[in-house]
Amino acid sequence: MINWRIEEEGFDQERISSHGNKFLVGNGYLGIRGTLPEYEKKEFVAVNLAGIYDQVGDGWREPLNAPNGLYTYLRLNNKEYRLPQSEPEQHKVSLDYRHGVYERSTTWNAAEGRLTLLTQRFASMDEKHLICMRYSIKVEDESEQEIDAEIFTGIDAEVWDINGPHYDELNMRTNAEGNTADELIMVTGTTHESGDQVGVYETYRFDPMHQQEIVIEDNKILRRLTFKMKPGKEYQLFKFISVYTSKDHTDYEKLGRELVSASKHTGYQKKLELHSKQWEKLWCNSEVMIDGDDEAMEALNYSLYHLHCIAPRHTDHLSIAARGLSGQTYKGAVFWDTEMFMLDFFLFTEPEVAKTLLKYRIDTLPGAKKKAEYYGYQGAFYAWESQEGGYDACSDYNVTDVFTGRQMRTYFKDKQIHISAAVVYGIMRYVNYTGSLELLADGGAEVILECASFYYDLLVKKVRGDRYELHDVIGPDEYHERVNNNTYTNRMAKYTFDSAIQILRKLVYQDVRIEERLKDRYDLTGLLEQFQDASDRLYIPEPDQKGGVIEQFDGYFALEEVSIEELKGRLLHDKEYWGGAYGIATHTKVIKQADVVTMLNLFSQDYEEEILSKNWEYYEPRTEHGSSLSACMYAILACKCHMPEKAYPFFMKSALSDISGKGKEWAGLIYIGGTHPASSGGAYMTAIEGFAGVHLEQGELKIKPCLPPGWNGMSFPIIYRDELYRVEITKEQSSIHNLGKP
Amino acid sequence: MINWRIEEEGFDQERISSHGNKFLVGNGYLGIRGTLPEYEKKEFVAVNLAGIYDQVGDGWREPLNAPNGLYTYLRLNNKEYRLPQSEPEQHKVSLDYRHGVYERSTTWNAAEGRLTLLTQRFASMDEKHLICMRYSIKVEDESEQEIDAEIFTGIDAEVWDINGPHYDELNMRTNAEGNTADELIMVTGTTHESGDQVGVYETYRFDPMHQQEIVIEDNKILRRLTFKMKPGKEYQLFKFISVYTSKDHTDYEKLGRELVSASKHTGYQKKLELHSKQWEKLWCNSEVMIDGDDEAMEALNYSLYHLHCIAPRHTDHLSIAARGLSGQTYKGAVFWDTEMFMLDFFLFTEPEVAKTLLKYRIDTLPGAKKKAEYYGYQGAFYAWESQEGGYDACSDYNVTDVFTGRQMRTYFKDKQIHISAAVVYGIMRYVNYTGSLELLADGGAEVILECASFYYDLLVKKVRGDRYELHDVIGPDEYHERVNNNTYTNRMAKYTFDSAIQILRKLVYQDVRIEERLKDRYDLTGLLEQFQDASDRLYIPEPDQKGGVIEQFDGYFALEEVSIEELKGRLLHDKEYWGGAYGIATHTKVIKQADVVTMLNLFSQDYEEEILSKNWEYYEPRTEHGSSLSACMYAILACKCHMPEKAYPFFMKSALSDISGKGKEWAGLIYIGGTHPASSGGAYMTAIEGFAGVHLEQGELKIKPCLPPGWNGMSFPIIYRDELYRVEITKEQSSIHNLGKP
Repeated sequence: MINWRIEEEGFDQERISSHGNKFLVGNGYLGIRGTLPEYEKKEFVAVNLAGIYDQVGDGWREPLNAPNGLYTYLRLNNKEYRLPQSEPEQHKVSLDYRHGVYERSTTWNAAEGRLTLLTQRFASMDEKHLICMRYSIKVEDESEQEIDAEIFTGIDAEVWDINGPHYDELNMRTNAEGNTADELIMVTGTTHESGDQVGVYETYRFDPMHQQEIVIEDNKILRRLTFKMKPGKEYQLFKFISVYTSKDHTDYEKLGRELVSASKHTGYQKKLELHSKQWEKLWCNSEVMIDGDDEAMEALNYSLYHLHCIAPRHTDHLSIAARGLSGQTYKGAVFWDTEMFMLDFFLFTEPEVAKTLLKYRIDTLPGAKKKAEYYGYQGAFYAWESQEGGYDACSDYNVTDVFTGRQMRTYFKDKQIHISAAVVYGIMRYVNYTGSLELLADGGAEVILECASFYYDLLVKKVRGDRYELHDVIGPDEYHERVNNNTYTNRMAKYTFDSAIQILRKLVYQDVRIEERLKDRYDLTGLLEQFQDASDRLYIPEPDQKGGVIEQFDGYFALEEVSIEELKGRLLHDKEYWGGAYGIATHTKVIKQADVVTMLNLFSQDYEEEILSKNWEYYEPRTEHGSSLSACMYAILACKCHMPEKAYPFFMKSALSDISGKGKEWAGLIYIGGTHPASSGGAYMTAIEGFAGVHLEQGELKIKPCLPPGWNGMSFPIIYRDELYRVEITKEQSSIHNLGKP
Repeated sequence: MINWRIEEEGFDQERISSHGNKFLVGNGYLGIRGTLPEYEKKEFVAVNLAGIYDQVGDGWREPLNAPNGLYTYLRLNNKEYRLPQSEPEQHKVSLDYRHGVYERSTTWNAAEGRLTLLTQRFASMDEKHLICMRYSIKVEDESEQEIDAEIFTGIDAEVWDINGPHYDELNMRTNAEGNTADELIMVTGTTHESGDQVGVYETYRFDPMHQQEIVIEDNKILRRLTFKMKPGKEYQLFKFISVYTSKDHTDYEKLGRELVSASKHTGYQKKLELHSKQWEKLWCNSEVMIDGDDEAMEALNYSLYHLHCIAPRHTDHLSIAARGLSGQTYKGAVFWDTEMFMLDFFLFTEPEVAKTLLKYRIDTLPGAKKKAEYYGYQGAFYAWESQEGGYDACSDYNVTDVFTGRQMRTYFKDKQIHISAAVVYGIMRYVNYTGSLELLADGGAEVILECASFYYDLLVKKVRGDRYELHDVIGPDEYHERVNNNTYTNRMAKYTFDSAIQILRKLVYQDVRIEERLKDRYDLTGLLEQFQDASDRLYIPEPDQKGGVIEQFDGYFALEEVSIEELKGRLLHDKEYWGGAYGIATHTKVIKQADVVTMLNLFSQDYEEEILSKNWEYYEPRTEHGSSLSACMYAILACKCHMPEKAYPFFMKSALSDISGKGKEWAGLIYIGGTHPASSGGAYMTAIEGFAGVHLEQGELKIKPCLPPGWNGMSFPIIYRDELYRVEITKEQSSIHNLGKP
């Protein structure tokens, strides 16, 4: 059994940034890094907001961090007690990841006696704009001498940003009309680019007799609570913080103020209960039990915790950033990670969220069409790094040459065309798993037709020759740029054509709403003809005659054969880029991440198992796994090849990526740390679709278990076509029970 | 008037390598760098041979330097007098470039008196395997004291190589059977790669009483001539050297020995006369007189001298290397330089040489087909750097990254597909100017069909779209790699199709030999249909609506606009490469050399003069002129736009490139110096086709003079369709006189 709690004892300055990710709490609207209440900007404090962005000057456009309403520190007899400045006697942080509750406990040997500080906080899963914190202190001492205590608490608007500051203006104030007891403090920040407003509202409850004074300095608005403290007695401060932006509601300020006042009225404990109940509901449909491997069960459910923390439930059209809500890394942008690595978790446990993620893509179709047009193409070319409206935050220059300090031209934005197919894949997967045409009727059908038009416009053929090809692309393996006929990309384009054909031939006539939307805007017969032709003639490289291996792209087999170890020996600088035109991997067979293997996972039914395993065996030793998207693809395909023992280490690598807290956090001077939700989603897919072997057969949910050596069994819920199922797998037998409506 | 002699006084160690090029003598079979007889390997001595190559280990394959039969130095009373070791009192080198005779004169203040050393030598234009030298010494002194003199002379087989040594074996010997007076010394070197043999044979004449002893040491075989020398008397040594290779003749050794013996018998002076007479003959059909600008006339005719020095006249199928016969730079390989920049000179002055150059391409068609096949294409893809048999000496890695020391992948070899069209252009130009179909009948027609097949196989089209395109190429401007629809390349491919069509539609039926060769090997009707379709549909970018500028390739106009000056400011290292994926020019509009402008020169008849000048004005400030092939293209096009004053500086830059001796000689530690025959040819084209405006109108030779400001007139011979013409241009009038058979 696992206890649903992770903790770390002791204080280590080096772990500050990594703790920020590992102990994160969130509710999809916002994510709060697992930092301490007394931490400031330099400790990477962030209350990271979903779906709102800003750009300053030439810096990268990135999501906003809100002013930090949790900010609190303590002073006893004029001496501050806070980390990292004051050396503690004991220190522990913990996270109840069953309920998204973060706690810290620190003791200091103070002159006045043994000082203990306990804090607890959560980002309410019940009220997405609400953050609550309990802050309690106690001094244990034989004497009865009263202590002059001060708690400074309020809102720290001196926000950590990677490419900020984003607030041109900060309005810090209290509600003048209120009486002291109900007095709110408020910060409104106005963003640079579009003048959006982010409002943070705070009230508190502190029962002991005390005096309050408002202090505004250094972009902080703080209450100074002074009181006489008795040794042996615990003093508890409760804070209620709300966060709203002008994009949420025109009346956002009123809502923000009312929310904290009402929450205070309800009380901390009650709010905690409501919050925890929501979490229990989530686990009810998502907890994965593993019999015989607690480490795996903990790592996996901890991964699911992170997916829950970032799932948008406060809106019906929003997606998830590559680093979730853990900060501004990767610009808070949405990558193909969402559709290809996270979607299945939501599809199987909370289909409404899956729909919300895909609605984001439907809503950003105009942005995708604009991008295609910019490059001279028809149809929809989705953003490689998508922000609001489908704006592509990806730069043409994404990597710094460590030898010259110059920016290197990269082609992720303009050549990684497989992104559009990922969107199609997500939508069709939703349609197939839910059986609902609603998403298609709601704009999804157009997305698919536009993506197919995009690929159709990209198709080239040799004048002497019949087959259609896609040239000058980057596949999932980014170390090999500008290649022709990347198998993954070609196959995904074919999938897109086939999906469009399915709509044009069948689905359009099954739902009058789809027909209504499409018939006047498109020449349906003409498109069908084009896409059918494209699907028939698009070149999909086949397993080679001898070894059964599928060539990753034209010319891959002719590249240098070299081991990853030997390649590493060629590095002249530990941070140098392996890809690009002259990287050490570029002219070798070494690839960054699963590429052909990803394709084989998605289309495994088209190949003999022997081909799957031959390609696994060929590509695995040639894969650096330099992306967190790689391991799970090897894990799942290994399961499909009945090699669970080979799958297991890759599964654990994916599942442990955040709990280990050992992810790469720095690229030169740029912070690239954060959580890895694609890895989490990949771990889930491995467990459910790999080890349990969940799949569809003629529209029916089936399992085909293939457990790793140490596992005795698995049990988990899964939603399919609006019904909840429970899958039970033991070594002896396995079953699927229909539990009815979820 | 010019005096047909260049000279430099004084000795400067720094000028040794540059003098090697500037004072070169040659006869097409071999080139002898303008070094001194006492120089050795470290002074870059080279007797560079045409058309014979060798590769050792991983080094670049390069042409051979023969053992140096001129090697001679002097010792008086046991003291050596030689440069650069002994500081001279006076020193002068000179070149009679009317007759290809090189002289040196050096005086030393010797203990014995004022020592004067005069040498004169030539690479016989009359006997291509023969080199002759006169070596005379004199001591001026009041005293009558005899001096112990020693002349060491023979063959230095310690040869300078860039990627050598190439002789696995050196056989140094004398002809045992001979008497002393006629004794020959001989060196045979056996090459590493294919065991070719290079034989050098030497004999001498020295009339004063002397003793001879043969000394073999340090890869030198030398005669030690000892004699008593009287002050005030001149002593003359004559040397006769022959060079043959086993590729010239199976009996090469016999020929080599007989040649030096016979030459000695004939005598130096007579040999010099015969040699000079041949040069006079060459000038008779090539000298360009310029009235009013001696500097230009000297620079131009000096350029023509270099072209004469490297013209293959000893065989009927050989081409010219990019650095002529000045050494091993650029691997002694044949580039597009020959057809596009040198051919016209020979076509107008010595059509037999032009034919020999083109026959080389016909003979290397199998190599070109093999290269195409290697890359998966049909037809003929000529070598970017062609050695014997059409072997492509170009490497995939041609540039060293100055920041990492790593080799950078370049694409000259595989993407610079315009090379095949240059061959076609050369052949068709020969056909049009000579009116002879012989070259076509002799294999030229197949070359053209195979090149057209190559381009046809490369054509791609968008599936949605009708036009044919050429993707992923490099045009003449090498700073922009892997571009689509490079206008120059597309236009040259169309030219190739049109040439093939002309053959298939017309010429094949005009010459029964052509018909016989082609009809069984090709489906002539099918090819005609294909090529006609290709020519009709191949996309040729047009002048843009607003500015009349033709885009160099897809996307060029969107690149960064930056001045060359500003760009230079971005250099971090003075030797860093401007091109490649991340070079400073790569993502800007700055180009290395004429690209669109070259195309406009070749097809100027297709455009209004306004378009020509608009493109000249647009591209010139964006051109770095980082190649010696650039200036002349701007010069010629300026003439076509009636801007002779703008043409002039570019003309002079081309014409002065070798005489100035200021060319770039080093790239890091690699010697890249040598002569610039393409520049020389470009200067000639500018003078004849630019300033004089020679062109064809309905098959008739016409002129359209456009003289630069300072010129009063021009006069030159020109051969057209087997008749010699004299063109006379003054400010007032111009005329063409037919002088009958040349």
